[in-house]
Amino acid sequence: MANQKNQPSGKGCAVLVVHGGAGAINREKLTASRERQCLSTLEQALRAGFKVINDGGASLDAVVAAVKVLEDAPVFNAGKGSCMTRNGKIEMDAAVMEGTKLAAGAVASITCVKNPVTAARAVLQYCPHHVLLVGGGADAFARKIAEEAGLKIVDPSYFRTKNAEETLKRFLEMEKVLKKKGKRPSGLTTGAGQGDEDKSPAELMELEDLGDIEDFPGIVMPELDKTGKKYGTVGAVAVDRSGALAAATSTGGTVGKDPGRVGDSPIIGAGTFADNETCAVSATGTGEHFIRNVIGHEVSALIRYKGVSLQEAARQAIFVNLARTRGDGGIIAINRAGEFAMHYNTLGMYRGVVFADGSVATAIF
Amino acid sequence: MANQKNQPSGKGCAVLVVHGGAGAINREKLTASRERQCLSTLEQALRAGFKVINDGGASLDAVVAAVKVLEDAPVFNAGKGSCMTRNGKIEMDAAVMEGTKLAAGAVASITCVKNPVTAARAVLQYCPHHVLLVGGGADAFARKIAEEAGLKIVDPSYFRTKNAEETLKRFLEMEKVLKKKGKRPSGLTTGAGQGDEDKSPAELMELEDLGDIEDFPGIVMPELDKTGKKYGTVGAVAVDRSGALAAATSTGGTVGKDPGRVGDSPIIGAGTFADNETCAVSATGTGEHFIRNVIGHEVSALIRYKGVSLQEAARQAIFVNLARTRGDGGIIAINRAGEFAMHYNTLGMYRGVVFADGSVATAIF
Repeated sequence: MANQKNQPSGKGCAVLVVHGGAGAINREKLTASRERQCLSTLEQALRAGFKVINDGGASLDAVVAAVKVLEDAPVFNAGKGSCMTRNGKIEMDAAVMEGTKLAAGAVASITCVKNPVTAARAVLQYCPHHVLLVGGGADAFARKIAEEAGLKIVDPSYFRTKNAEETLKRFLEMEKVLKKKGKRPSGLTTGAGQGDEDKSPAELMELEDLGDIEDFPGIVMPELDKTGKKYGTVGAVAVDRSGALAAATSTGGTVGKDPGRVGDSPIIGAGTFADNETCAVSATGTGEHFIRNVIGHEVSALIRYKGVSLQEAARQAIFVNLARTRGDGGIIAINRAGEFAMHYNTLGMYRGVVFADGSVATAIF
Repeated sequence: MANQKNQPSGKGCAVLVVHGGAGAINREKLTASRERQCLSTLEQALRAGFKVINDGGASLDAVVAAVKVLEDAPVFNAGKGSCMTRNGKIEMDAAVMEGTKLAAGAVASITCVKNPVTAARAVLQYCPHHVLLVGGGADAFARKIAEEAGLKIVDPSYFRTKNAEETLKRFLEMEKVLKKKGKRPSGLTTGAGQGDEDKSPAELMELEDLGDIEDFPGIVMPELDKTGKKYGTVGAVAVDRSGALAAATSTGGTVGKDPGRVGDSPIIGAGTFADNETCAVSATGTGEHFIRNVIGHEVSALIRYKGVSLQEAARQAIFVNLARTRGDGGIIAINRAGEFAMHYNTLGMYRGVVFADGSVATAIF
């Protein structure tokens, strides 16, 4: 799989595909033990999802089962291990969608549910007239429906990890350095924001991890942890035996985000989308770019109206559409035929696939 | 215009199009004075937006100017006059997008800004790395940026109107009647929710307004106000002299919504979308269906990949795509050539257009 970057070979049709985030993952700095931890978590998620489908279950249940495993693992930025807002809080977003009835459920800025993806699923199931609940309303709904829907309510301290605390500290120090300089390094002006703005502290952190930032002599970098601890949004897409597609995505968002900031994960059509007639998609990356380019639905539209293959649609969405605003990230996609795609324009994407015979493949680079 | 339901004739190219919501507007119950009030507000909004463009301003400024007029008018469900949540609070959503850089800003569940569309605009302008802020975070951002961005902070009581209070009362009574009956009238099961669920109390209220609900003898309707006071989400799309497109949408949401519920208005690709290469779109209707079908981006994709006209794309989005989940509502759209479309599958949509020569046309049915 590592040799075939985007088209891993498989035995039979794919059943379920997962991702654990895309980004400037530094190959040299990623320790062997961390790499093993990430790959084994991806594999666990694939097996959890595969079991549901192999037992004759629905793709919607399979993607939720897979994402729960990724949320529970502190190595990924969702559920336990989520990134922190600039004021040190954890606010999570998640969505699910199934492609038969185009039914969807999503939560944003939720703080009290152990597995945010299960809260999104509960919105789909128990909240027939709403798709998206946010903030205090999402928390209140989750508490109310917890028993009936089997949601586990936890104290916000459950989600906190040392990694997330250190990453926020680095973010705030990076911001301070940039502020002291009075300006951002012009060499880094690559339109990271909505127009031609400079890179954000979070994006500079990625460059720093890669060693690139030392090339800008005007910037004195703080002495920060550089362990290659990169992690991201998680997601899954699946097809079940009835041919029904489903997608699920869950995230802690971006480090140092403003309180109330919502990324693409819970936005149907951006970070999460499923339609039996075309494909199921889950995205990861700089969420705002996925929102502005409506990437999830773009893959679907390319298949439906331009008549291209799933592979080609996913490739174009990342390398043509997302490129319009110079966004970074990746997507996974699957269709009813069990064809799948994994495309990203970053250095790596934690990802994996399980095939109809139960065989599993995982990769990062 | 009234005789040409969806393609009003105009003098020259269209510059700006507005809507004030689509729904089961009862022609017999709409009083002449209320009709005048709505049409004159639409005309004021058109003139406010036209002035910006005629003075050489940007389409983004024009749609914000137009939507502000509609938000300030208590006859529409946005800003002053917004619908209430089931617990009597007012939570508003708004978005803006411009089609040159695909830059966007949105707020959801905001409670303290007189013109939510200006808060969405402030996210675009002052929050370069975020697109969507929700809940308490959105309110906090608005208060912080108020002076710099010229946002007017008001007490939540400013938004309350007698109409909104009466409508919520009707909603809660309708819900009680349905609950007492133990079931919802099966004749009304038309898939209003995400699958084949029954209609919501809010949708039953629309049927009641139309007199249709009396046809279900099993249901004893409460004695409620039936004055045809229908109003909805507001929005605007525009093209300026440089050929730049922009869209803006603002809403109080649906009556009796759960706290934290977010509809399609602030979701880029669903209720609001703009891309100079295709079109600018603003939607109104049962928001969840517009989210699930990603209607705004669907219009754009139909033009880009299927090669159909703006008119045909807007028509298909409402009568083919939205119909997949049996959603109700309408959209307005415009392109760089000044072509425009107004399509809806409801009984009416408050709408209007201003042409390059400053002439204005408005309509409801």
